[in-house]
Amino acid sequence: MISDNMIRLAASNSAIRAMFEEGLRLAAEYGRENVFDFSLGNPNFPAPPEVNRALRDILEEEESTLVHGYMTNAGFPDVRDTVAASLNERFGGTFGKENIIMTAGAAGGLNIILKTLLNPGDEVIVFAPYFLEYGNYVNNYGGVIMPVHSAEPDFQPDAKLLKAAVTKKTKAVIINNPNNPTGVVYSENTIRSISEALDEKQKELGSPVYLISDEPYRELCYDGHSAVWLPNCFKNTIVCYSWSKSLSLPGERIGYLAIPPQAEDGARIAEAAAIAGRVLGFINAPSLMQRAAARCIRTSIDINCYDQNRKNLHGALTSLGFKTTYPAGAFYLWMKSPEPDEKVFVNKAKSLRLLLVPGSSFAGPGYVRIAYCVSPDMIPRSLPAFKELAGEYDLI
Amino acid sequence: MISDNMIRLAASNSAIRAMFEEGLRLAAEYGRENVFDFSLGNPNFPAPPEVNRALRDILEEEESTLVHGYMTNAGFPDVRDTVAASLNERFGGTFGKENIIMTAGAAGGLNIILKTLLNPGDEVIVFAPYFLEYGNYVNNYGGVIMPVHSAEPDFQPDAKLLKAAVTKKTKAVIINNPNNPTGVVYSENTIRSISEALDEKQKELGSPVYLISDEPYRELCYDGHSAVWLPNCFKNTIVCYSWSKSLSLPGERIGYLAIPPQAEDGARIAEAAAIAGRVLGFINAPSLMQRAAARCIRTSIDINCYDQNRKNLHGALTSLGFKTTYPAGAFYLWMKSPEPDEKVFVNKAKSLRLLLVPGSSFAGPGYVRIAYCVSPDMIPRSLPAFKELAGEYDLI
Repeated sequence: MISDNMIRLAASNSAIRAMFEEGLRLAAEYGRENVFDFSLGNPNFPAPPEVNRALRDILEEEESTLVHGYMTNAGFPDVRDTVAASLNERFGGTFGKENIIMTAGAAGGLNIILKTLLNPGDEVIVFAPYFLEYGNYVNNYGGVIMPVHSAEPDFQPDAKLLKAAVTKKTKAVIINNPNNPTGVVYSENTIRSISEALDEKQKELGSPVYLISDEPYRELCYDGHSAVWLPNCFKNTIVCYSWSKSLSLPGERIGYLAIPPQAEDGARIAEAAAIAGRVLGFINAPSLMQRAAARCIRTSIDINCYDQNRKNLHGALTSLGFKTTYPAGAFYLWMKSPEPDEKVFVNKAKSLRLLLVPGSSFAGPGYVRIAYCVSPDMIPRSLPAFKELAGEYDLI
Repeated sequence: MISDNMIRLAASNSAIRAMFEEGLRLAAEYGRENVFDFSLGNPNFPAPPEVNRALRDILEEEESTLVHGYMTNAGFPDVRDTVAASLNERFGGTFGKENIIMTAGAAGGLNIILKTLLNPGDEVIVFAPYFLEYGNYVNNYGGVIMPVHSAEPDFQPDAKLLKAAVTKKTKAVIINNPNNPTGVVYSENTIRSISEALDEKQKELGSPVYLISDEPYRELCYDGHSAVWLPNCFKNTIVCYSWSKSLSLPGERIGYLAIPPQAEDGARIAEAAAIAGRVLGFINAPSLMQRAAARCIRTSIDINCYDQNRKNLHGALTSLGFKTTYPAGAFYLWMKSPEPDEKVFVNKAKSLRLLLVPGSSFAGPGYVRIAYCVSPDMIPRSLPAFKELAGEYDLI
């Protein structure tokens, strides 16, 4: 009796579920310490101590009816003031609380902004490989997802291909930087060329194309890289942020939408987004976590833990002869499959109890994604299995 | 540039917003203590002390990566076990964790179950007067809302009208008991006749009609009344629960869907609902609050505070000659407008700084809703204004 749409979604979900269950089966058979699960983007490091301290202080200092109560759908005004001031301080700009909508994580923010913008049939461009759930989010509102492929070896989006893909029906482009699944941080050059391409197309079409920037990995950049702040380059940018990774709070569902004052129709979009959040049943972002995030506005996890994993795993896999991007951001390593069908490769890895995700789960066949947000000791433990896997191919 | 659908939603939102802003304007002009705002269903009583104690204990005792981390989309297995066991203990039944999906409040749960069930064009019946947001939730998934009117003076749903309204396209009936806006608790007789009507129609149509029971007010019953547990009466019931009112946590967005094991296609619905929550961007119910709710599973606010308000306000308004239902549940008083157009009456009330909601905002014209979840001292302070309002009509 479930809807036709959900029948389709449940069927495509069963592959992920099958992998998850296979992981549980392997753990039961061989012991958890002998299964090397690199499949999930679930931070394995605790939230910084400032978070729990802030939570305790709020419970101590603030009134229950405020902390746990309803507020305006857009979120607590003082929290939105704090977010706006922090963005202005870090990136320049003139954000005010009216430009900030607190959301249940970035996934909540993406759904809210897509509900706000899309008419059925509107097109939304993404740069592939990409997080396939974007397609479901766009489909929720009758939109059509249009992938534009990024090329190896560096997987920077190609502004020429983008320009060719924009049509009269294009309402938005989703960008994810630092990138899941590739670990790539987009260069200033890339961002400039994307901005110019969109500016030109907007002029040509006479209507705005919004750049929706999904930024849960914004603070996770290594080797001095940083993610360019898009509203400074392209005025019709809408930022979806989440503290899931920067404060290791993925289960709490806390983030925000930032709709810059200079964005075309920005005030109406912000107002409608607050209503869209209510209509979709979010009502408001979780209240206690809103207040905690504001108190931790200058806090971030120590990214050294991820950086160490990154260096150790990249170094080991490269010396075994695997070809991977050297990731500059997020916590994913994007590795070329040593045989054309990466699903066969993923199955061989699984027989060695190495759990990787096939690139085709991100519209990037021929590659695999390795999530290194794992306990640091798992990496050396997994290396004999990677070595055996390399041995099955003539890599060196 | 916002979508056509959001243009419509933003326009209908502006009436509520206008009232909210009028309240702020009145408060600025006359002082907050001289504005009597009975318009919002926002609990004015703090969460029981057990809640903050549980939160502190969790932060002390449990691991950060568990407490703040991702879990399966349906929610923490141990939390769902606790909810299932509590339902079995209170109401009998054989709920297991596989029948429970933790959700971001009842509004989140309603959206998830409607996304799970509805194909475009499917009809969903509601008993009017009703919370108009249901119409938006149904519309999110292309469904069509079909109101069936409940009659004065007792506003119990009429099973005959329900039966006449069920068609081949009917996928679900939403029921809200205790009721917003009427404060009515549905009698055993009503529930039995609704169940029988749906059983008959199901047999006739050869397909299930789901009864979606929205129960945020379940624990708020007075004078020994109680809300009948619907899964014991009609097997295709799906319960949407929220701790917003029973623990005074409306801002935290925490609740659950209970899909009984006996419901037709129940296992598939539960599985699909967990996926629907992910696809809609909820991902999972807020993690810390899931754990706190489980620790507070036997806790509820002291409903005496609401009961006192109820008695005081009902007594005073009745003695002034107003005609209201004597509410047996929730925290709303449903009062007959002394003139045919209740919007005129609401405006007169507003000129005396009494903020009430016109019944037409609940598809119940001719009435007004008075939310008595207010600070107890506001009631005696508001009585001179109610007296003056009564004086404008020949009530006694």
